[in-house]
Amino acid sequence: ESKLPGFATHQIGVAGAVVDESNGKVLVVQDKNKTKNAWKFPGGLSDPGENIVTAVREVLEETGIRSEFRSLLSIRQQHNHPGAFGMSDIYVICRLRPLSYDIHFCTRECERCEWLSLAELARTADTTPITSRVARLLLHGLERGFESIDLAMEELPAVYSGMFYQLYHRQIPSS
Amino acid sequence: ESKLPGFATHQIGVAGAVVDESNGKVLVVQDKNKTKNAWKFPGGLSDPGENIVTAVREVLEETGIRSEFRSLLSIRQQHNHPGAFGMSDIYVICRLRPLSYDIHFCTRECERCEWLSLAELARTADTTPITSRVARLLLHGLERGFESIDLAMEELPAVYSGMFYQLYHRQIPSS
Repeated sequence: ESKLPGFATHQIGVAGAVVDESNGKVLVVQDKNKTKNAWKFPGGLSDPGENIVTAVREVLEETGIRSEFRSLLSIRQQHNHPGAFGMSDIYVICRLRPLSYDIHFCTRECERCEWLSLAELARTADTTPITSRVARLLLHGLERGFESIDLAMEELPAVYSGMFYQLYHRQIPSS
Repeated sequence: ESKLPGFATHQIGVAGAVVDESNGKVLVVQDKNKTKNAWKFPGGLSDPGENIVTAVREVLEETGIRSEFRSLLSIRQQHNHPGAFGMSDIYVICRLRPLSYDIHFCTRECERCEWLSLAELARTADTTPITSRVARLLLHGLERGFESIDLAMEELPAVYSGMFYQLYHRQIPSS
């Protein structure tokens, strides 16, 4: 048996749920040429070497909204993904906080882009199951505090000198 | 600009923290030929097409301990990983529950394998930073309930017929 490491097997997609806490709205898009009338969080494939927090860049390019990373919310693993030439796919949804509010969306990628109330997104049929699920998660966070749903991120030094990695897990209360 | 999807960029490693709740001990190994005297959770690279819950298989092969999947605890993303030929690496640690207790470890991979108390693992210098961190997380879970640190897993149908994916996020209280 070979002990050589295997080849890369996964592509990583990231999406950003930009939540405006002042009014309970979240930024959503409808893709062109894909699932009809389905609201989704903006995002896309991360480029090689990019971090999960690349969601901030994806959201900016797709919607014109500037934002900052707050936490990791959910992870999906799927195999034989048609969009990945049969490879596996990890799809991560992050929680972002908006730094701007005027939408200028990419008309090449999106059909529509709006600030939609989380309550409406959690209840509409015009969305995907995973978006609906995360909308309910975010609604819970909005009402009870996001610390109940967040995975915090921390950057730590790797054992290989000069390198860093990002670690995501539940915040351990300092008490 | 090409709209073709990119190639796979990540390899996925999984490790299992098998926690015996009856005595607060966790299953740890020391690798052969790697970091000296560093306790780690057993694990390895997932084979193509395998799920994150492959941690159960990795733990069995490496330690002889049978276990069942309970939750996802942490995710690390690292780029230019030396063991991945410069590709990126996602390393996931799961919480497992033991179904057997007698260790029969793989002498080709491991130098040592023991049930170690979580309190000791959280405080020893003979471990890696990420293992130490997750030991503290698990200690908190052992004392206050694992629901405070767990990401639950659920299998959902994909939009492509006949396929399923695994979704991990914080449990939403049903209340």
